[in-house]
Order: sequence, then structure tokens, then C-alpha cells
Amino acid sequence: MKTLVKLDLDKKPWEQEGQIHNRWHPDLPMIAMVKPGDEFRVECMDWTGGQIGNNDSANDVRDVDLTQVHYLSGPIGVEGAEPGDLMVVEILDVGTFEDSQWGFNGIFAKENGGGFLVDQYPEARKSIWDFHGIYTTSRHVPNVRFAGIMHPGLIGCLPSKELLDKWNKREGDLIATEPDRVPELALPPNPKSAVMGKMSGEAAKKAALEGARTVPPREHGGNCDIKNLTKGSKVYFPVYVKDGGLSMGDLHFSQGDGEITFCGAIEMAGYLDIKVSLIKDGVKKYGIKNPIFEPSVLTPTYKDYIIFEGISVNEQGKQLYLDVNEAYRQACLNAIEYMKKFGYTGAQALSILGTAPVEGHISGIVDIPNACATLWLPTEIFDFDMKPNADGPKVMVKQGIDTAKTS
Amino acid sequence: MKTLVKLDLDKKPWEQEGQIHNRWHPDLPMIAMVKPGDEFRVECMDWTGGQIGNNDSANDVRDVDLTQVHYLSGPIGVEGAEPGDLMVVEILDVGTFEDSQWGFNGIFAKENGGGFLVDQYPEARKSIWDFHGIYTTSRHVPNVRFAGIMHPGLIGCLPSKELLDKWNKREGDLIATEPDRVPELALPPNPKSAVMGKMSGEAAKKAALEGARTVPPREHGGNCDIKNLTKGSKVYFPVYVKDGGLSMGDLHFSQGDGEITFCGAIEMAGYLDIKVSLIKDGVKKYGIKNPIFEPSVLTPTYKDYIIFEGISVNEQGKQLYLDVNEAYRQACLNAIEYMKKFGYTGAQALSILGTAPVEGHISGIVDIPNACATLWLPTEIFDFDMKPNADGPKVMVKQGIDTAKTS
Amino acid sequence: MKTLVKLDLDKKPWEQEGQIHNRWHPDLPMIAMVKPGDEFRVECMDWTGGQIGNNDSANDVRDVDLTQVHYLSGPIGVEGAEPGDLMVVEILDVGTFEDSQWGFNGIFAKENGGGFLVDQYPEARKSIWDFHGIYTTSRHVPNVRFAGIMHPGLIGCLPSKELLDKWNKREGDLIATEPDRVPELALPPNPKSAVMGKMSGEAAKKAALEGARTVPPREHGGNCDIKNLTKGSKVYFPVYVKDGGLSMGDLHFSQGDGEITFCGAIEMAGYLDIKVSLIKDGVKKYGIKNPIFEPSVLTPTYKDYIIFEGISVNEQGKQLYLDVNEAYRQACLNAIEYMKKFGYTGAQALSILGTAPVEGHISGIVDIPNACATLWLPTEIFDFDMKPNADGPKVMVKQGIDTAKTS
Amino acid sequence: MKTLVKLDLDKKPWEQEGQIHNRWHPDLPMIAMVKPGDEFRVECMDWTGGQIGNNDSANDVRDVDLTQVHYLSGPIGVEGAEPGDLMVVEILDVGTFEDSQWGFNGIFAKENGGGFLVDQYPEARKSIWDFHGIYTTSRHVPNVRFAGIMHPGLIGCLPSKELLDKWNKREGDLIATEPDRVPELALPPNPKSAVMGKMSGEAAKKAALEGARTVPPREHGGNCDIKNLTKGSKVYFPVYVKDGGLSMGDLHFSQGDGEITFCGAIEMAGYLDIKVSLIKDGVKKYGIKNPIFEPSVLTPTYKDYIIFEGISVNEQGKQLYLDVNEAYRQACLNAIEYMKKFGYTGAQALSILGTAPVEGHISGIVDIPNACATLWLPTEIFDFDMKPNADGPKVMVKQGIDTAKTS
Repeated sequence: MKTLVKLDLDKKPWEQEGQIHNRWHPDLPMIAMVKPGDEFRVECMDWTGGQIGNNDSANDVRDVDLTQVHYLSGPIGVEGAEPGDLMVVEILDVGTFEDSQWGFNGIFAKENGGGFLVDQYPEARKSIWDFHGIYTTSRHVPNVRFAGIMHPGLIGCLPSKELLDKWNKREGDLIATEPDRVPELALPPNPKSAVMGKMSGEAAKKAALEGARTVPPREHGGNCDIKNLTKGSKVYFPVYVKDGGLSMGDLHFSQGDGEITFCGAIEMAGYLDIKVSLIKDGVKKYGIKNPIFEPSVLTPTYKDYIIFEGISVNEQGKQLYLDVNEAYRQACLNAIEYMKKFGYTGAQALSILGTAPVEGHISGIVDIPNACATLWLPTEIFDFDMKPNADGPKVMVKQGIDTAKTS
Repeated sequence: MKTLVKLDLDKKPWEQEGQIHNRWHPDLPMIAMVKPGDEFRVECMDWTGGQIGNNDSANDVRDVDLTQVHYLSGPIGVEGAEPGDLMVVEILDVGTFEDSQWGFNGIFAKENGGGFLVDQYPEARKSIWDFHGIYTTSRHVPNVRFAGIMHPGLIGCLPSKELLDKWNKREGDLIATEPDRVPELALPPNPKSAVMGKMSGEAAKKAALEGARTVPPREHGGNCDIKNLTKGSKVYFPVYVKDGGLSMGDLHFSQGDGEITFCGAIEMAGYLDIKVSLIKDGVKKYGIKNPIFEPSVLTPTYKDYIIFEGISVNEQGKQLYLDVNEAYRQACLNAIEYMKKFGYTGAQALSILGTAPVEGHISGIVDIPNACATLWLPTEIFDFDMKPNADGPKVMVKQGIDTAKTS
Repeated sequence: MKTLVKLDLDKKPWEQEGQIHNRWHPDLPMIAMVKPGDEFRVECMDWTGGQIGNNDSANDVRDVDLTQVHYLSGPIGVEGAEPGDLMVVEILDVGTFEDSQWGFNGIFAKENGGGFLVDQYPEARKSIWDFHGIYTTSRHVPNVRFAGIMHPGLIGCLPSKELLDKWNKREGDLIATEPDRVPELALPPNPKSAVMGKMSGEAAKKAALEGARTVPPREHGGNCDIKNLTKGSKVYFPVYVKDGGLSMGDLHFSQGDGEITFCGAIEMAGYLDIKVSLIKDGVKKYGIKNPIFEPSVLTPTYKDYIIFEGISVNEQGKQLYLDVNEAYRQACLNAIEYMKKFGYTGAQALSILGTAPVEGHISGIVDIPNACATLWLPTEIFDFDMKPNADGPKVMVKQGIDTAKTS
Repeated sequence: MKTLVKLDLDKKPWEQEGQIHNRWHPDLPMIAMVKPGDEFRVECMDWTGGQIGNNDSANDVRDVDLTQVHYLSGPIGVEGAEPGDLMVVEILDVGTFEDSQWGFNGIFAKENGGGFLVDQYPEARKSIWDFHGIYTTSRHVPNVRFAGIMHPGLIGCLPSKELLDKWNKREGDLIATEPDRVPELALPPNPKSAVMGKMSGEAAKKAALEGARTVPPREHGGNCDIKNLTKGSKVYFPVYVKDGGLSMGDLHFSQGDGEITFCGAIEMAGYLDIKVSLIKDGVKKYGIKNPIFEPSVLTPTYKDYIIFEGISVNEQGKQLYLDVNEAYRQACLNAIEYMKKFGYTGAQALSILGTAPVEGHISGIVDIPNACATLWLPTEIFDFDMKPNADGPKVMVKQGIDTAKTS
């Protein structure tokens, strides 16, 4: 496996010889060209580019500079790729670096991005997760261990200018509806901290002014945070510019559906082994708007779950209309309350939902006025039996430990 | 297995000796009492009580009287059950009636309930599904066959008066925000067509005026339409009234996550084999708000999927804020477009999404402003290869057939 | 589903209007003809034809008359089937009779057939298993419950005269090597108790003299006792006579790989729903000697196992050469010793291996002189944690109970 | 992860600073000591110590010097381990070396070990398998690709002197029954090519004369060739000497049940990440004779199989008595004939059975006189549809290619 993108983790993202960028722009030059059928390795920094330390303070999570993220490796060009093609990307492997056997999970502060349960958990928190081969454990969240489902949180092809403009327009329109909201509704282009790969000079400055931020998933894929894009999966990405321009990063050792803590997965540096090919004119042939993918034959086979239902009535008792977000929020809150009965703190329980291979299902979405969502919590990841029984729950979790706080 | 509720399918719901009701009310008398540990069989009508025929016209779907639904069997009391307990319900089996080896899927008209894709599919449609042991096929949707994951769409315990009042209040408040909407935002109490089980006279009339409609899932479970409540699963329901009062119905032969066609599953008459027990004071012990459950060891093991992503930008290009409903709608629309390339009509493809064991996952829900949802379509259910390849799709589906229309 | 074979379980096998036979012979008349594509139901007696009772004595197991078994329903002809075709048999469903919700497991006495561990367990024993929907439990084997994987132990097409002669010749040759062995090496044709379906008079007598016994699996399938021929599977049987002649019986609610107690599964009466079709000349086209099959998408998904290794060194320490039987015997004995530590008697543990969905794998078969076999025991079927830990095992099984003995 | 055993693959096994041995002997000195709870990495050579090249000739397979094998890394001591304890070994990870992304599969010649189908395939053959992340393909066996289930073929603790003597006695007794057989019945101690780790001088010479060969699995585990000892599994090994002495090697990228080609898996160099702990006096507490293990949550999830039955009648039509080896041999031969219909050569088909994740089940083992074994061939590993259909098979495999032969 040829290493196409080789990084030096002791250097900053902008010192990596132009192999990294943190904005989406059609003019980003390819950092390398490959042929259809090629297999190669791409190294990636963690999404923050090294802002978070393996320590017991959440100060760094509180202070993350979101204008910097996400640091992506690429773009990589595929010979012959043209707009309208599908780029077929097989994720042959995802791996960790031998000297970096840990990752982090952050609950972001309300003032800095927030998260899915920001009202209940408005303060920055952090947990560090150590890797033990296929498994991970955390000194901040005891009595739980699970197998990782490693994947890139963020991967996709460069947008065309037209697509970029569309993104900026529609997201700007949204921001304009409530420009002072905290957390903000969306992140507009912002040249601060922009790293534009191999662009330089005026071109880079101009591109930084209009380059799309990397936070949301969009038509091209991007920051989909789909835990199932793991080793062995196969993704079909729309191509928008000549050569395609595939970029990737935001590697996760594991993540739960929804990535609900925002910095939600177990974030890590690592590498991807990739094989690329093309389906010419595939976008039209298959009627593709967003990427589609096939899952891997190699994923953790947890199957013994406690499943929590949630409906779209909020904590204040207000009835919302077929709102899956609210239903899933309630399912998550229900799961947290349940886990607390065994001795977890709320923040620990929340971290488990963000990092462990929990599943989030849209169960019923037509039965007015309530949507019903289900959160599937695998019971095998705990080292105690956490199913209900006639005796009721006991405190089984080691006490006196919590996720790292700010100081 | 003792049959506790024995129906005569040739009779109307209100002719079943008081064993059926179609409103939730605390005063509904128990139709039978069982002991913790008992196992018993409960027969159920289809949710419409026989309004839909095994024929090739969607007129009956168009004309379904929604004031009638859902017809539930029960309530069944459990000796010793008190408010605050958890009623543990093991679904030992779900079965069909030997002389009723078919079910129906309906796309509801915009004027009569609508559905998840009501804008694209505003007209009533119907498909009939024949059962072949564990499998089902439809004369209206060719080239597809799948194993059922039979389950009750609707099951739960009677609400207390206090809970009923809360439901009526919050749903009324929602309706009041847009009282003339089509389809309506929620369904208020309506004495028309109310069937109140063993209640009669003035008490029945009064209860019908305030009894909650059965359409939405609520705190007690109810119409959750969770396909995974299948034979072998175990559900923990909160108890709100003395004896609990467990009712059930709306049996499905199969359903996709979301039940997106509204009458969305393969609806059928059939029976449930149930075992009940109690966890005294379990609501408080385990911090339960909504039911929780454990899945079955016996569910179809489809694992080869095409997965469609959707983000919360609507067809008009409008950016919505972290809206999972919209993201899932887009994923569904993407899947339909894809299936059309192989020769399905849109309505057929929609019916497949409603009936087959598709999975709907909440994948990313924090990456502002886009939620990302994924629709998992099992490829093994088709009798042709529907994965993308370099040659592009071919029409593989038998042409000249469609879901039944209205006349 | 049309019922093609309808039995009266209160009658004897030979009183079932010629729908049952217990020998394999090419001249058995078809009891019904179907067309390719037809679906139909076939009812079956338990393999002994009702010799075993739902009681607490093993006398009936001790006294089973093996000249009677197995009672099969059929043969059913398929129009157009000719020698050399493959008959495609889809097992659409397997079901129990509503008024016969139990089955039995027998350890056969050394004098009457014996079993895989006959040296350790030479006496007749019985356990009765009650059905609870998809699950089963036994009053003779406490603290264990599992989902059934219902299947016909015995199914296949009639042999040709030529094939029958081959069977009788080769099995006779084997018997001749040790004619007085107990248990016997094989069972020769024996007219005693022969039931020859719709044959009568001299023809029946003659056929009974040469008809093959039903005990072993052979080229046509027959008594394969493969637990995976469950509802949803698809089997391809060689056809040897005009119309094929499909017969079936020996239904099991559940069975472990190997069926090691001989009457080894949970034996029951019940029905099969079947769909048949043909692959003309399929035997030659696909190079088929024995049946092949595709598994079901619907089987219990136990996945948490304790796995026991065995090698081909017997209890006396004698080294055998690459002997999988011995290796599997040792793995079984190892599992039994392990289970005893939690309080099971040996006979109970043996019954669990015979009935529960244990897997038997041929792991290594070339590493001279030891074969290595593994027995996979699902841990989820026990209501206590039976994995090893630092504290050692505790007696968790209810004491004072055992499998039924003879009196 | 600390690397406890660090090898130089450019050197010979006996040049690795005493970290490697190829005989089992109680006096082998520990090469390192660890504490219970420690995690560490162990590098391993391929089982032949580099005798096989990545080329297109089977000469090296033909000429393998079996007195050399298997080269094991260890023994590693665990502080506090005493005879009678169980050493708990968690296989946290199994990995390949970045500069050695290939493995080999060999069919051994009759004169040099042979294999399971030695009569049909008596000549040496070789196939080279390239690794692509989690997948492997071979230039010698086209149209097939599968995910590896990496595992050590050989792992276990040192025997005591008493156990060693028992092995040598019983295997010697077997050899004595047919001392001139080709292939031989078992491999006696042989000082030729013995590598005795950190032993030297007279002690090493003496130990080499009595040290057990590594080929068979035995009570301590050893060369079990169980494909399921993959990353994420947990094994409990009996301890026979002070400190235990855990050794391992014979790494496989993938293997089918039975490892039927003898050099049957995809053999490779690589590393194991291991965690060890102890259950004091566990052998007696749990009644352990052979190792037991728990499978991983992370294994390839192939589930769509063609399953081949075999019975214990050999190719000459001779009836054997309940002989699972013969039944499995017949199932394997049946599978090979079937694969040939799609264009594979026999040797290619055999290589697939040896390398791919096929399952070998002991299905029925009591139905005298025929054992029934089943071979499960995953259909998803082929890039064409290989299930039977009415049209019959077509040659789908690229022609003109075969496994490498001798010259």
C-alpha cells in the first residue's frame, strides 16, 4: 500500500507541505493523482489538528478554535474523473498510529458549538479513550469497553463553483433568520484560520473568503459522521470537478448514531487505506443526489440491546409535530436517566451515547403528532448486567470518577 | 396457550362481545384478568377492523374512516399491577390466521391522513401482499420478496385520568396552532365511531368524548410502530392504573423503519402470544418515562444493503436546521429515484420502503445546519442485483404493473 | 396454503389413509401430485408415531420399537420431475399443532440404538420440552430457555431401484463385518412394522422386504438431521424416479449440531409449508451427488458462546488418527464437565447439547495425528452467567431435578 | 502497546536472539516475564520461517522442510502462574507487517505431509494471496475476494514433563501401528532442525531429542488451527509449568474450517497484541481439559451460503461407520465439483476451501451408519452469482490461470 499522504504529527496542519486543507473550494489543487483501480494510504490528523491533549482537563475542549476545523487530507485526483461521474471509494482499512493509541470525546460548551443535549449539558467536558487493539476503554468512564468501528467522519469530493455558491446561499439565508443565536444556526465562510492546501497568495485569500466550512454534511457527503463508513465499506461519491478531488479526515475510533456530543465520537489521528474507481456518468445513470454506500462485512456484532423509546414531546411537556430530533433527544435523555441508576454521572452516560456503537432508529414517523425514535444501547459493552429485573438496579459503576471538567 | 381474546372475523369490531376498543380511557373495564407469569393468546383484527379488501382498487384506502381506528384487543388486567409498576410483556409469538394469508399496504391520500411523502404521493394507493410461510410477495409490486418481522404496531397500558388529560391538553394546544391544516396536526377526541369495550350507557358516552385517539405513540407506548417488537422481544411498560390494562392491535406482517406510507406496514389480522410479569415500583427504580424493550433473537438477518444518505435541505433547496425528518425524507426520495432506474414506479418503490425491513438511522445530528439520516435498503429482497456497477442499471422489474389506484 | 397431507393424531400411523410410510422404496405410489410452483402444507407425526408420552418416565424411550421408525408423510409427486432433475424445495414454514405444544428428547439405551456418548450415558433418559411461542423450556432441565430452529430431521426423494440396491449392498457389507455388535452397525431391511403407504398386498410385502430403513442420511438426503433446514431455507434434492416422490418427517423444534443424544432433538409432531419447483437435468449441470441447500434469513442469532475444544485422544488416553468423531466426543464431554460445575447432572447437560442450538465445527483436520473439533455452546440460553471468572463457578441450577429415568 | 518480541524478518529463525523455538519442552526458558493485566505485542514469523516465496512456482511448497516447523515466538512467562491455573489470553489484535502484504496457501505433496484430499490432489501447489486492507485476493485464484479473519493457528502454554512424556508415548504407539505409512501417522521427536529458544549446549541437545513436534493440537491448545481465535477473542489455557510459558505463531490471514489443504490457511508473518491474566486453580474449578474460548464480536458476517452435504460413504462406494472425516471429505469433494462448473480448476477450488471463511459443521452423527457433515461456502466472496438456477451454471471464472505448480 503506497502512502500517498504522509504527515508529521509533530507539526501543525499548515506545516504539512500543502497536503491539508480545512475549507471546501473547487480551486484547491490536487495534491496527488491516482488511476482508477489504485490503492493507497492517506494519513490524517485528528479533526482539530492537535488542539486536544491526553490529560484530565476539559479546558482545551472549551477553547477549541472552530474556525480551524476540520483538517482534511487531500484533495486527491482520479485520472479521468469528470463531473457527473461516481467515484467509487472502497475503504479497505482504517488504522491508528502505533504511537498514538488514544482518542478523545468532547462535550462542547454551549458558547462554542454546543451539542444535541446542550440544554442539559451546557459545559465543556472531555473523556480520554485508550485503545487496546480492537477495544477501547476510558479512565473517565469506567466499567465499559467496546470494539471500535473505525471510520472517517468526513469524506467527499470537491464541490463545483456552482454547488459551492448554492451552499453559501442557502446557509446564509438560514443564518439570516436568527443571526445572533447561540449556538449559531450555521457557520458562514470565514477566512480566519483557513488552510487552503497548495493554494497560495491572492488565490488562496480569495478562496478562503468563499470556501465552505467543513462542519455540515452536504450533497457531496462531507461531514456525514456515519459510523458505518468503516473498513470494508464502499461509497459512491458524486464528482463535481475535473479529477474529482477526494478529501478526508475527522477519523473516529468509534461513534454512536447521531454523534450526539458534537465532538461526539472518539476522535483520533490515523490513516485510511483506499481504493478508487469510477462509474462514468453514474450520477445520472443511478439518479444520485447524495452519496450512497454499501456496508462492510466486518463490523462489531453487538446484538443484545436495551432499547429506549422517545416521542416528540419535550421536557416541558410541549407537543411537537412529528419531530424526530425531539423524539431522539427524549430517547437519549431516557437512556441517560437509566444509566444513572447504575451509578454513572449524566456526563458519563452522555459520553457513552456519543462514543459507543449505539444505534439511533427512526421508528415511527407518521403517527400524528408524535414521531417515535429508538436508541439502541448494546448491553454487552458493560461489565455488569444492566437489564431490568425484579430487584431493581444497583450501583455497579466505580464511584468518584467523572469526565474531565474545565478548571 | 390459552386463548384469552377470541374473535370472529366475520363480525364487526363492535360485535366482538366487548373485547375490542378504539380509544384510550382509564375507565375501560378489564376484559380478563391474568396472573404474573401467565401465558395467553390474544386475537386481533386488522387496524381498520376489516375496511380494506383483497382486491385491486384503492377506493377503500381512500375512504378509510379514521374515526374508527385502531381496533384494539383488551384491556387485560394483571393481578397485583399498580401505578408505578413496570409490566413486563414477552411477545412469545405473533401469527397469522390460516384462512387470512394476506395483508395490505396503503398510501393514504392527502385529504385522509397523508403520509411521510404526501407532497410527492398525494393519492391513495394500495398493494396486497400474500404470505408464503415466513415470506411475502405482492402482485402489485413484482420482483421483491422478503421475510416478515411480524409485530404489533400498537401495544400499551391504559393511561390514568391524569395522563389522559395531559395528552388531550398538549395535543389540543398543537391543533390550535393551525386548526384547519390538511392533513391535520393531531386528532382530538371524537365520539364518532368510538368503541368502548365493555363500557355502556352514559359512562361509555362520556368516556368516548374524552378518550384519546389511538394514532400517536405516547408515554405508555401505544402506536409506536416499532418493527422490532417482534416475536421473541420483551417490553417493559409503565403501569398507570390498577391492574395495568394491556391492549394491543394493529398487527403488521412487516414494516420498514418509519412506516412511511402511514398505513405503512403490511397490515393484517392475527394473534399475539404473550407472557406477562411485573417489576414492582419499576418506573421509579429504573427512571422510566417511555417503554423500553429488548429485541428478539429471531429476526431476519438481511445484511447486504444499499444505504442512501439524506440531509436536511428540502427539494426546493431550502436549508433547514438539523432536521432529521427532512433528512430522512430526502434519503427516502433518493432511494425511490434509485429504484425507479430498475423499472419500479414511484408508488411501488414507496410501498417497498413502507413494507420491507428497511432501516432508518439517525446518523449525524449535530453538524450544523445539516442533519444526516440514512435509509438502509436490503438488497437481498430483490430477485435481481441492484447494486451499482460500471454498466449502469437495467430495467429488471416486470413492467405494466403498479400499485392499485382509485377508480 | 392448501393442506395436502392431513393427519389425525389420535390414530396410528398405519391408519392415516396410506399417507404415511416408514421405508424407502421406488415403488411407493405418490399420495398426491403437485405442479412446479405449487405451495402446500404437509402434516407430520413425530418420528415414533406417538410412542413417547408427555410424562416423567423414560420407560417409553427405553422401549421404543425402532423397526417402526421413522414415520414419513408422502411421497408427493411433482409433475414433470424425471431422474436427473433437481427438485427445489423451499421450506416456507415449519409449525407446531396448537393442541400439541410440547416435544421430547430421549437418550437411547445402549441396547436400543445408543447414542454418541453411549459409554458414558448407557441408560434411557427423557426430557419433556414445553413450547412457549418461539421459545422452549423443560421441567426436567431447569434454568435454560432457547428459541427453536424448527426443521424436518428427515426429507428427501424416493430412491431408484438401482440406488436402493446399492444402499442395501453397502450397508449389508458393513453389518457383515461385525454382525453381533451392540449397538448394531447399521439396520438392514426388516419387514416387521413396515408401513408402505398406499401399497398393499404382495407388492407391499415384497417392498417391505427390500425397502431401506430410514435411519441414515444417504445420497438423497433422508435423515440428515441438519438443524439448518429450517423455515426459510431452500434445498435442492436429486430426483431418482419419475415424479420425484418427496417424503418428509421427524420434525424437530430444536436440535444441536450432531443430534448427539440420538433421539436427539426436541422431537415433535407438526407441519411443513413447502414450495416445489424443478431444475431440469440439474444433477449433471451442477455436478450434484448429495443435496445442497441455502440457509434461511430467519434463524436465532445467538452469538455469545463458550467454545469447547476436543482432540482425537480418547478417555483412556489412546491416540487416534485425525478422528473428528473422537474429537467432537471429547469436546462434548468437556462441555458436560463444565456445565456440571454449575449444578447440572450429566444427563441434563447432555440433553442441552442435544436440544439447544449448539454448533459443532470441524476446526482442524490435517494436523497429524490430532483432529480438533469445537463445540459452540450459546451462553445466552442460560438464565445465569456461565462464563469463567476469577471467582470460579457457583451452583446456579435448581437442584433436585433430573431428566426422567426408567422405572 | 509494548513490543515484547521484536523480530528481524531478514534473519533466520535461529538468528532471532533466542526468541523463537520450534519444539515443545518444559525446560524452555521464558524469554520475557509479564504481570497479570499486562498488554503487549508479539511478532511472529510465518510458520515455515520464510521458506516460501512470493512467486509462481510450487517448488518451495514441495520442498518444505517439516522438521523445521512451526517457528513460535515465546515462551512468555506470567508472574504468579502455577500449574492448575488458567491463563486468560485476550487476543486484542492481529496484524500484518506493512512491508509484507501477502501470504501463501500450499497444497502439500503426498510425500511431504499430504492433506485432507491427498488422494485427489497429491501434488504440491501454491497460491499467493495479496492483502488489500481487510480483504485478500489471489492472482492464482481469480474472481474471489474475502475479508480475513486473522488468527494464530498455533498458541498455547508449555507442557509439563509429565504431559510431554504422555504425548510422546501415545503418539509413538500410534506410529508403531504403521511405521512406514506415507504420509506418516504422526511426527516423533526429531532433533534435526530443532530450535530451542534460549536453551543452549547439552541441555538444548537433550531437550531437542525429546521435545514434542508442533504439528498436532493437544491438551494445551497448540496447533488447533481454529479460525475463530481472531482479534477480539478470549482464550483460557491450562497452565502446566511455573510461569505458564505462552508461545504462539503460525499466523493466518484467513482459513476455512478444517484447514483442509494442510498448509491450508493463508499463511503469513505478522503480530499479535495480547492481554494476559490468571484464574487461580481454574483447571479444577471449571473442570478444564482442553482450552476453552469466547469468540470475538468482530468477525466477517458472511451469511449467504451454499451448503454441501457429505455422508460417510467413500468414492469407491464403501460404507463407513459414522465417520465424520469421510463425510466432510465428501462434502468438500462435492463443493469442488460444484465450483468446477463455474470454471475453477480442482486445485483452485480446493484452495478456496482452504483459505476462505468456509464453515464445516458436524450435522448428524448418530444415524447409523452414516455421519452427515456440511460444508458452508459463502456465496458473497465470489464476484458472480453462484447459486443454482433453472438455466444451469456458466463459466464465469477467468480461464487460463491456475494455482502455481512445481517445475
